[in-house]
Amino acid sequence: MEITLESPLDMHLHLRDGDMLKLTAPLSADFAGAVIMPNLVPPVTTPQMMVAYAERVQAALGGAAFTPYMTLFFTALDEAALLAAKGTPGFFGFKLYPAGITTNSEGGVANLRDADRTLHLMEEMGIPLLVHGESHGFVMDREQEFLAVYRDLATRFPKLTISMEHITTAAAVRLLDEFPNLCATVTLQHLIITLDDVAGGMLQPHLFCKPIAKRPEDRDALLGAVLGGHPRIMFGSDSAPHPRHRKESCGCAAGVFTAPLALPKLAEIFAAAGAADKLQGFVSGNACRIYGLHPAAKTVVLQDTPMAVPAAYRSYGQTVIPMDAGKQIAWSIK
Amino acid sequence: MEITLESPLDMHLHLRDGDMLKLTAPLSADFAGAVIMPNLVPPVTTPQMMVAYAERVQAALGGAAFTPYMTLFFTALDEAALLAAKGTPGFFGFKLYPAGITTNSEGGVANLRDADRTLHLMEEMGIPLLVHGESHGFVMDREQEFLAVYRDLATRFPKLTISMEHITTAAAVRLLDEFPNLCATVTLQHLIITLDDVAGGMLQPHLFCKPIAKRPEDRDALLGAVLGGHPRIMFGSDSAPHPRHRKESCGCAAGVFTAPLALPKLAEIFAAAGAADKLQGFVSGNACRIYGLHPAAKTVVLQDTPMAVPAAYRSYGQTVIPMDAGKQIAWSIK
Repeated sequence: MEITLESPLDMHLHLRDGDMLKLTAPLSADFAGAVIMPNLVPPVTTPQMMVAYAERVQAALGGAAFTPYMTLFFTALDEAALLAAKGTPGFFGFKLYPAGITTNSEGGVANLRDADRTLHLMEEMGIPLLVHGESHGFVMDREQEFLAVYRDLATRFPKLTISMEHITTAAAVRLLDEFPNLCATVTLQHLIITLDDVAGGMLQPHLFCKPIAKRPEDRDALLGAVLGGHPRIMFGSDSAPHPRHRKESCGCAAGVFTAPLALPKLAEIFAAAGAADKLQGFVSGNACRIYGLHPAAKTVVLQDTPMAVPAAYRSYGQTVIPMDAGKQIAWSIK
Repeated sequence: MEITLESPLDMHLHLRDGDMLKLTAPLSADFAGAVIMPNLVPPVTTPQMMVAYAERVQAALGGAAFTPYMTLFFTALDEAALLAAKGTPGFFGFKLYPAGITTNSEGGVANLRDADRTLHLMEEMGIPLLVHGESHGFVMDREQEFLAVYRDLATRFPKLTISMEHITTAAAVRLLDEFPNLCATVTLQHLIITLDDVAGGMLQPHLFCKPIAKRPEDRDALLGAVLGGHPRIMFGSDSAPHPRHRKESCGCAAGVFTAPLALPKLAEIFAAAGAADKLQGFVSGNACRIYGLHPAAKTVVLQDTPMAVPAAYRSYGQTVIPMDAGKQIAWSIK
């Protein structure tokens, strides 16, 4: 059996910088493009920094046909700054982090009301807002607590396209029904794992991410919506590499590295559920429609021939452990 | 300020075996005694194995005045076997593990009804049953799901002393009110941490244990009951050392090592809450009354002079990282 995908997109990707970027960028090159997260050190906050980062991304790709949809780290900006961002080639939208909520988000927004004017301008200018939606509450409640913020934003800025990034709960899936200007990304791992896989047996640092994996009923709600072809849920891997020593240590950094196995694993999941016809929408069609994207043509054929996931990816002095390291996936890229 | 404790007891302690036992046993010697868990490889299932293990424990203590209250790994036994256990010097009770639920529990009980006859005999003979009370369900629900088993046991064996070991939930605290034959142990870490401390920021392998730390309201219920002098809650550290490389790795073993800092940290918590007068009952009085123990006299004076927790405990080729490694505790042993 085969599944042919046209121009698959990863709508949430961390490529990092420096040697780690050189390792990761080529491992996403089966995609036609990806939304590149701006949480570097320091975060990507200006068009100049963004252009320079896009050039480093392109250099790391070594000529592969891949469009980096660049984001800026959201801060309160005036109209001139927003116009400058919008006019910069490669600019896709702003990524909003509540301050201190995840890797390199210390400079994020503490009080959203301070940014009302910026959000109003973004709404008028058609600039999307991508949000890491977690409160500072108890770890299992953070996303659900943040839904009130999404409700408030979606109500007050009804024409602003607001993406709830990497949603992990049934409650977030339900919220999509309330507001047509909300959309969402879902990662690979949150379609598969629950907190049981992270901390129910041995503790598994390579499955630890933010938002943390939730309850079985949450995972099932995500899976049900995605396999059912929900028109406003897009694939965003949130593939988030860290050096091995930062994962297997006292104080493990948050992030699951899935980019190189995402498409085969998604094919396995969708095919096993008899939903292969829904994969194109999830990995490309929905994003193209929601954001008006026209990615370059790239055809990826997935086949039900197994692939072995490497135990580690090593290059440029970096070692990154992928999800399912050393395991087999029933599907592969032809 | 000082708190004087008479014959403090640790009602749930893992000393392990071999070189690890040689490291850990002396680090519990401020206690007058401890209930020693039997989940070795293979588990301690016969009086002969138990006597031999008790001798190794005593040898590791090097003459320190410390009573190991020995337990046997619960299996369905007949009357002769129970009599033999009860007649063995040092025997305290049976520890019941649901099969496969924690470290070295693979040989545990799969169906409790198979053990009804044994439990009935234990009730008649006055042998306590200590239980690791977790279901095989979702990690945050395991203890609460197991409460039905406690209810069933406490109802059907009303004279059996049943200890709910290392409880972690408000629901378990409430269950104590329903059955006078239920008692419980509480660890140090579950009076302090929640899942936020394990997985809310960076992932902290040295705070990962089973049962996993729960929600803030659960921690607060435990703390409230203990500081309020609940007569059927006893201190059981569940101090559970693992070699450092088994904690800081891909697949981290469950257990927090607290034995050497437990008494100072408890003094800090009780004193800060103005409940210093409740500490004696928690660390000794309740256990002596519930089980009819008469530990050897040992006076421990705690003072509000800080102690520095070592970054690691190293000896006999073993390295174990304690809770609060490298931090300061406001109290110390005089």
